[in-house]
Amino acid sequence: MRTHFQRDLDQMQLHILGMAAMVERVIDQTIRAFQTRQPGLAEEVIRGDENIDQEENFVEEECLKMLALHQPVAVDLRRIVAVLKINGDLERMADLSVNIAERVLMLGEGPTLPFPGKVQWMAEVTKQMVRQSLEAFVQMDAHLARRVIRMDDDVDRLNKEIIDELIVLMQSQPGCVTQGLSVFSAVRHLERIADHATNIAEDVVYLVEGEIIRHRLPEAVAG
Amino acid sequence: MRTHFQRDLDQMQLHILGMAAMVERVIDQTIRAFQTRQPGLAEEVIRGDENIDQEENFVEEECLKMLALHQPVAVDLRRIVAVLKINGDLERMADLSVNIAERVLMLGEGPTLPFPGKVQWMAEVTKQMVRQSLEAFVQMDAHLARRVIRMDDDVDRLNKEIIDELIVLMQSQPGCVTQGLSVFSAVRHLERIADHATNIAEDVVYLVEGEIIRHRLPEAVAG
Repeated sequence: MRTHFQRDLDQMQLHILGMAAMVERVIDQTIRAFQTRQPGLAEEVIRGDENIDQEENFVEEECLKMLALHQPVAVDLRRIVAVLKINGDLERMADLSVNIAERVLMLGEGPTLPFPGKVQWMAEVTKQMVRQSLEAFVQMDAHLARRVIRMDDDVDRLNKEIIDELIVLMQSQPGCVTQGLSVFSAVRHLERIADHATNIAEDVVYLVEGEIIRHRLPEAVAG
Repeated sequence: MRTHFQRDLDQMQLHILGMAAMVERVIDQTIRAFQTRQPGLAEEVIRGDENIDQEENFVEEECLKMLALHQPVAVDLRRIVAVLKINGDLERMADLSVNIAERVLMLGEGPTLPFPGKVQWMAEVTKQMVRQSLEAFVQMDAHLARRVIRMDDDVDRLNKEIIDELIVLMQSQPGCVTQGLSVFSAVRHLERIADHATNIAEDVVYLVEGEIIRHRLPEAVAG
């Protein structure tokens, strides 16, 4: 029974890793669409969301089957529930990418605003967070998970710097307010994607160490 | 066994209803803090978040216990998994309220921007969505859940109208850009709270009708 469960769990982890890779690709595509203002690329992101939605439904159904079939307890039960939660986080990340892609389509109209270079940097850190939070889950590596949680501080700092630059730009060029708001919104979505990766990392620390760190102060998390 | 499970499930539903009531109160407080620019009220929202976090942890632990103890299958299993997901949605709603409260603290500084009257309306619809999505879950009422899903269109429309007004304001008064962005951000957070209520309502429809509507087109959902 245990072996069968383990095989199903491995299978499930492969699926969730595949989903994370899809999400990383989507973030990549979205930021490229954002940088190059290619509506075609943005539309591709929006269309591709259906695949991730289907994958989410599949993983959820498989988790329910595993719960019903193996009736796991203790750490096995926690792992399945963690997969359910990670699954939800990944799907929301993809949704947020779609929101950014929709902003890109809006940006297409009107005067061109200079693309803040730090957005690329922020996207790179965010993708790393997505990848490493999943790695931390599969390896049950609390140390790596804590590193992901700390990376979120970099994303928050970049987010703040980009917004400060946007404010200066919008104040000096009121004609750019509409476009500025689109960039602002897109950057906030990116920051929220990083938050979901942080949620995953926090769940991993909890899984490994059996303590709820999600709602602790940052000092306690950084340790 | 069934009766014991039913009793535990009822207990769990009471907890999740209590949590929803807390979230409604928090939204209320946040919008009042926003309207009246009372930093004290905003700080109260931020401090109170700890209670909701503790409640979330409690509900999650109880769900895990129920899964381990009763090893439910079929619809009972789905209901527990639904509670886990609703629990996460409610906690995120409270987090988003905290984000709005943080914006209120920032709004305190600088010149005063007129408060968009439609925000109050948007908040009212959002609170209704929170309450009715939970009612729909407890009553297993797919009809009510679909009504909640349709209400999200009203929130989206109000969100768009408020943002259009903000754009005009920021274009005509560049000195208000920083404050305008805070209002923009707060309104987007409110819209996202409504999205979480929609998620809950979609889960209810799925629970009752056994079909995954989350990733269907709006036409299919509205029916």
